[in-house]
Amino acid sequence: MSDVVRWLRDHRERNLEKLFDFLRIPSISTDPAYRDRIDEAARWMASRLEEAGCTKVEVIPTKGHPLVYGEWMGAPGRPTVLCYGHYDVQPADPLELWQSPPFEPTIRNGKIYARGACDDKGQLVIHPNALEAHLRATGTCPVNVKFIIEGEEEIGSPSLEPFLRAERKRLACDAVVVSDTGMFSKKTPSITTSLRGLTYLEVEVYGTKRDLHSGSFGGAVINPANALAAMIAQLKDRNGKVRVPGFYENVRPLTRAQRRQYAQLPFDEEKFRKSIGAPALWGEKGYTVLERLWARPTLDVNGIWSGYIGEGAKTVIPAVAHAKISMRLVADQDPREIARKVRAYLEEIAPPAVRVKVKTLHGGDAWSADTSHPVYAAASRAVERSFGKAPVFAGEGGSIPIVAAFARRLRAPVVLLGIGLPDDAIHAPNEKLDLGQFHKGSEAAALFLEELGRQG
Amino acid sequence: MSDVVRWLRDHRERNLEKLFDFLRIPSISTDPAYRDRIDEAARWMASRLEEAGCTKVEVIPTKGHPLVYGEWMGAPGRPTVLCYGHYDVQPADPLELWQSPPFEPTIRNGKIYARGACDDKGQLVIHPNALEAHLRATGTCPVNVKFIIEGEEEIGSPSLEPFLRAERKRLACDAVVVSDTGMFSKKTPSITTSLRGLTYLEVEVYGTKRDLHSGSFGGAVINPANALAAMIAQLKDRNGKVRVPGFYENVRPLTRAQRRQYAQLPFDEEKFRKSIGAPALWGEKGYTVLERLWARPTLDVNGIWSGYIGEGAKTVIPAVAHAKISMRLVADQDPREIARKVRAYLEEIAPPAVRVKVKTLHGGDAWSADTSHPVYAAASRAVERSFGKAPVFAGEGGSIPIVAAFARRLRAPVVLLGIGLPDDAIHAPNEKLDLGQFHKGSEAAALFLEELGRQG
Repeated sequence: MSDVVRWLRDHRERNLEKLFDFLRIPSISTDPAYRDRIDEAARWMASRLEEAGCTKVEVIPTKGHPLVYGEWMGAPGRPTVLCYGHYDVQPADPLELWQSPPFEPTIRNGKIYARGACDDKGQLVIHPNALEAHLRATGTCPVNVKFIIEGEEEIGSPSLEPFLRAERKRLACDAVVVSDTGMFSKKTPSITTSLRGLTYLEVEVYGTKRDLHSGSFGGAVINPANALAAMIAQLKDRNGKVRVPGFYENVRPLTRAQRRQYAQLPFDEEKFRKSIGAPALWGEKGYTVLERLWARPTLDVNGIWSGYIGEGAKTVIPAVAHAKISMRLVADQDPREIARKVRAYLEEIAPPAVRVKVKTLHGGDAWSADTSHPVYAAASRAVERSFGKAPVFAGEGGSIPIVAAFARRLRAPVVLLGIGLPDDAIHAPNEKLDLGQFHKGSEAAALFLEELGRQG
Repeated sequence: MSDVVRWLRDHRERNLEKLFDFLRIPSISTDPAYRDRIDEAARWMASRLEEAGCTKVEVIPTKGHPLVYGEWMGAPGRPTVLCYGHYDVQPADPLELWQSPPFEPTIRNGKIYARGACDDKGQLVIHPNALEAHLRATGTCPVNVKFIIEGEEEIGSPSLEPFLRAERKRLACDAVVVSDTGMFSKKTPSITTSLRGLTYLEVEVYGTKRDLHSGSFGGAVINPANALAAMIAQLKDRNGKVRVPGFYENVRPLTRAQRRQYAQLPFDEEKFRKSIGAPALWGEKGYTVLERLWARPTLDVNGIWSGYIGEGAKTVIPAVAHAKISMRLVADQDPREIARKVRAYLEEIAPPAVRVKVKTLHGGDAWSADTSHPVYAAASRAVERSFGKAPVFAGEGGSIPIVAAFARRLRAPVVLLGIGLPDDAIHAPNEKLDLGQFHKGSEAAALFLEELGRQG
């Protein structure tokens, strides 16, 4: 066992206590009432980076919540790793569903229960833990380490993207490491190597200038709700393919190796079906469930509303119908181009007796790792040494737009060294982080620095 | 001028004052807070019938609001006319949009503004006015007259239908007259000779047991909102035809005479389009606007909702999607049979990965008059003599289910002697009744009794 790992094992209680202090700060970014606690969390983070050995630490004000920057650059000529994470958390409501208070971290059955335990405080701190272990155990660190920690991840990272653009030099690095994802399962450690992108639209279909009585007018005017339904029906075919012209144009095809690798994962489709209570699974023809979730784009109605939606019967022809429609994208689809194509298609298929408005609410690039890059070998070895089993490469159906931004702006490979588990209930009551994952995660983060240093 | 008409002209002020007393009672049937005012309106109606000369008047309790029955049977051997109307009104909100208080009738520009002015108090009272005029001016009436007035029309007439079934003998008559509809326009007096029926369904489409994250699950599970949209899209084709098998089976075709008659009406499709602010008119191919509204069945989504319908973007796959869908029917479609057919069709076209539930909320028969019956000649002459112009026969796209029930239960022709105008704003703020329509309407009702007497 290396001195670094030994140091971490000797300081497990102390590192856990530090995490608990962090978790007690209700740094809810979306609620202005918590602005002081956001600042408190940023200050906590800065002092943790100083304590861990960073020689330069800065709390950087933004238009929104502050960024925290830190660096230890004591290994000139060696590679530099940039660690990213976020100190803000989701709101805790509904409070009555928590078994212990969300901001009073509590250990039950080997798990830390608290808002932010998994997303992202408990994952984020493994990196200062790792740097500190190197510096205390050996007096140095095999690579240079930078930190950039934000307080706005849960509200869309509005300040980080401009900062990435403006401060490319300060953030320059050879690899970015992010711990804000999960592993396939406790028995199957994994590294996430792809994220889907997103285009989120709101569609409005207008008919007459006001709601009309369906008796007095029914049959003589277009009904925007019927029209919108017909338009949505034309977005996807019976085989689950999106019918928007050019939608699949830039989709990077699944390689044979990927398909083989996904197929070898211990994934039980029937268990999956039961866990979500679906009468049957359904998706794009010719792909497995994991392929559909990780490597294929898709389209979903996220919300639809029009006319009378209360109790009982109201005989109305609505004047307008609304839908929120989003597309999950894969590399190398461009969210802006997809938004344009979908808008053009919706306008083309709209009946002539309605007016259509399409607004883009939100977008984000998909991301896919080049796993042949040596940082992936380093990360794999680090996980294997700490978790006792070589990790598999897995995909993730959700989106973390900032990951693609890091890769693009800094021209560096990104490694998603996530230690969450599928049942960690992020964004939900009783969010948790497995204690074993936390301690092994700190070791993996330290060993990742060691493995990178060996390569450098 | 007949003595009867002269009597009515001499008593215009007095009859208007009586109507105002009636309009001042806020007899809102849907709101339990107004239960006392409902009873007050029933008692007012009963005393008005007594005053008009009915020899037998009864307030009949029901499980809901009372019925008011009255009769003058002083013309043995002569025909009997049954007058129907309702003393209940719609709620008045939004109150702030009224120019004068809804229950303080006010005359502006020759119009009576009040809740119930047109629907139905101001129309209903022309019949006691007519009977009274005959009895006071001539000492007798050329036909027997019965009244059945309900207080639950605005809440679906739950007590009247059972009463019609149980009291067929008491209500026996040679014709039913109802003043609860409108005329084509002030310049074009009309008699409504058809009403559409209604089948109103609520459709629920279930996918998974709870809402899912659209990133983590999108592409691998059916989306009930997409599924519902696809199902709705299959309900109607591009030519506006309903695609439910057997939907048109019992539709009584438009006759050449009807089409000719509709075509001669002073109806301007472009003016109609502008009045409702539609980008274009749209409906079943091969039919004019009036044919689509009056003589063809149709299908409309009255409400649809699923998923996230607030501000901004939420990435959710809804667990369930809902729609309220109604069909306007024409003679001789059966609302129950149509409900069965639509349900079966929806279940057939539903994707296998969802469960579908269809509830029938509401239904009512269509009705179409046999205008060759002599009561129509009598009604036409009465309208021509009072309004100065022979009425046209017009249809009505809306539904008054009780009309078909009268025709069926009492086996008597029904005449819709409505005096409303298209802009009377029933169910809306600033409901009104044109003063001229009110006075001419009272005369028409009296002359209708005279004309019927001539036939008898």
